[in-house]
Amino acid sequence: MEQIDKLKENVAIILPENGLEEKLKLIAKENRKLVIKLGFDPTAPDLHLGHAVVLKKLRQFQESGHQIVILVGSFTARIGDPTGKNKSRKPLSTGEVKENAQTYINQLSKVIDIQSTQIVFNSDWLDNLSSSEMIQLLSRVTVAQLMHRNDFANRFSENIPIAMHELVYPILQGFDSVKIRCDIEMGGTDQLFNCTMGRQLQESHEIPAQTVMCMPLLRGLDGKEKMSKSLNNTVGLTDSPNMMFGKIMSIPDHLIPEFLELVTDFTQHEKEEITKQLSGGENPILLKKKIAGNCVKQYYSSEAAKEAEEFFRKQFQNKDPENRSYTPVSIQSPENNTDTISLISLVAQVMHELTKSAVRRLIENGAVTVNGEKMTDSYKEIQVLPGTKIKIGKRNFFELK
Amino acid sequence: MEQIDKLKENVAIILPENGLEEKLKLIAKENRKLVIKLGFDPTAPDLHLGHAVVLKKLRQFQESGHQIVILVGSFTARIGDPTGKNKSRKPLSTGEVKENAQTYINQLSKVIDIQSTQIVFNSDWLDNLSSSEMIQLLSRVTVAQLMHRNDFANRFSENIPIAMHELVYPILQGFDSVKIRCDIEMGGTDQLFNCTMGRQLQESHEIPAQTVMCMPLLRGLDGKEKMSKSLNNTVGLTDSPNMMFGKIMSIPDHLIPEFLELVTDFTQHEKEEITKQLSGGENPILLKKKIAGNCVKQYYSSEAAKEAEEFFRKQFQNKDPENRSYTPVSIQSPENNTDTISLISLVAQVMHELTKSAVRRLIENGAVTVNGEKMTDSYKEIQVLPGTKIKIGKRNFFELK
Repeated sequence: MEQIDKLKENVAIILPENGLEEKLKLIAKENRKLVIKLGFDPTAPDLHLGHAVVLKKLRQFQESGHQIVILVGSFTARIGDPTGKNKSRKPLSTGEVKENAQTYINQLSKVIDIQSTQIVFNSDWLDNLSSSEMIQLLSRVTVAQLMHRNDFANRFSENIPIAMHELVYPILQGFDSVKIRCDIEMGGTDQLFNCTMGRQLQESHEIPAQTVMCMPLLRGLDGKEKMSKSLNNTVGLTDSPNMMFGKIMSIPDHLIPEFLELVTDFTQHEKEEITKQLSGGENPILLKKKIAGNCVKQYYSSEAAKEAEEFFRKQFQNKDPENRSYTPVSIQSPENNTDTISLISLVAQVMHELTKSAVRRLIENGAVTVNGEKMTDSYKEIQVLPGTKIKIGKRNFFELK
Repeated sequence: MEQIDKLKENVAIILPENGLEEKLKLIAKENRKLVIKLGFDPTAPDLHLGHAVVLKKLRQFQESGHQIVILVGSFTARIGDPTGKNKSRKPLSTGEVKENAQTYINQLSKVIDIQSTQIVFNSDWLDNLSSSEMIQLLSRVTVAQLMHRNDFANRFSENIPIAMHELVYPILQGFDSVKIRCDIEMGGTDQLFNCTMGRQLQESHEIPAQTVMCMPLLRGLDGKEKMSKSLNNTVGLTDSPNMMFGKIMSIPDHLIPEFLELVTDFTQHEKEEITKQLSGGENPILLKKKIAGNCVKQYYSSEAAKEAEEFFRKQFQNKDPENRSYTPVSIQSPENNTDTISLISLVAQVMHELTKSAVRRLIENGAVTVNGEKMTDSYKEIQVLPGTKIKIGKRNFFELK
């Protein structure tokens, strides 16, 4: 039972609730391994820490002696989005799919044991499906069932077009589970609907329905949306140690518990210690360093983790103001042709993406220094002299030309 | 222009409104015939007068020198209803489809010139559609467009399951129009949606969109529902002359104008004459005889029409009461053990499907005779004697045992 608890740890949804126990009983009776499927879309092969949440769970199953099957969605990737509406989904050539799959497999090996993993391509069976077999397959699912998927229901009610092939894709994904005859399908919680389709299609093909196990979706560096390449908020598994460390240091403080749980491989005891420190008011930067270091250690080494921390310290902390590189800026002459300008106009000119009111708030909050002196009066007149150094917030350094 | 008016006569819907004129202009420019498609489902090959409404319109086009293409839906018929929910739609073997198609073609030749008609089977292209071509095809249509079809919208809102392949069938029907490159698709008004799908798919394949011409749906012998084999209210094109004549005589009076317009081939002048007689209070039986005779003449001959009328007269009119076959019935002894029974109880016993109040209305309306004598008093006591002859309405003849 202890092993089962470990396998269920951090899993957000198990469907049906006792599905893991059932499948373990079944394989004990049939004297075989669990077959666990994870599907991936070869259009975006760059893996990040969000993918790793699921992959680390797969590794646990591998370590318990079970069979992982990685399903490469080569059929759908080669079709892409035929409407052309979704530019991020261009059809890929067979060569591109293979290349992406290889990239993906190389990255997978950072988390799971790729030697004992089975890798299959759904074009192997979907390409050969005849038109009448396709119709037979579609007949096993109703429109209403598909329209229950949240994004379909929302788009339908908001009159945002859903092309028919989009409705078909979850059925094809479910058919993959029929072909693989998997006991378990894993995925993020956003895959719950599609995985449930697999249960239905297996049953209608008289195969025991798979158990669905969904892992939580890790949020990205913005602290809001799920980690996703298209949102540019990821920590990639192939990021350099310094990059990985620095990115994790940049997460908002409220993500610390989530990253501690889903990204690190600390023991339960270590996690509890860090959680205690967090609630005890410890400086969040210290806790993020622990998380960042643990993460680099997992994907590289302890050595690399130490070096990355040192690099971070040199780069972003204990900064020597003299060595800081300032961006040279030109300031437009003020209207009255004097050689001074109000602080607010000066800052607004160098930070032109900010509104005047945002600039005023920055100044009033003490985020602006001129030649090392904090300035909180927006209408203070500043002499426009070459070499004047302006610091705005933590990261913006300018020097007047 | 006179010819166009004739071609548009009785057409319920033309889409777009000036679509026939446009297509005639187009073919004049391209110096070719119109290509006019009519699809048919080879699961139910018995043609009836409802089908003939469309077929007669096709014959008009033929007579004007245009090309008719009959599309046999052999692909979908061979798939049938894979859910098995619709028992009337069993999958057919290739042999059965061929056999049904031949039956259908034989019957078609009763209305159109089959020699100059092109007959095509959609399995010729749909069978060879690859799974990815199928997905590409589906991508050209949105879910919302399909859900506009009345029966889909109703079933969806009433939570009656729609299997996914049902949603796909209109797309396949539309694809047939792409393959045939037809200028016009004909059908009943119930085919408007599916024909419109053909317009969309032709356009998305960069072919000029077909014009849709829908003929009215002829109602069946019940006077309510559209004529349909499954409703058992049809006059079949292969019905014997006597059967055809008798069935048309049985239509409710309110169908006379509809049958006059859609079933007969009377001239405009003749139709106007009959319409005048109808509104002038002429006996509807005489007018139905004209319609029935005209119909038999179309599908058989003037000779056959005369014989059928004579047969009808002998069978149902000028009946010799002595030769009429009476159904023997036993009457339950009345409670008071006398040998009489009230008329209403007597009639209620032999017509056990009628309510007492219906029986009373029959009697009061003079529809009941006992031994040739009309009886209008429901509570008249009748002697229960073997051999007593009871006539109820026009068709029910009983004799007490």
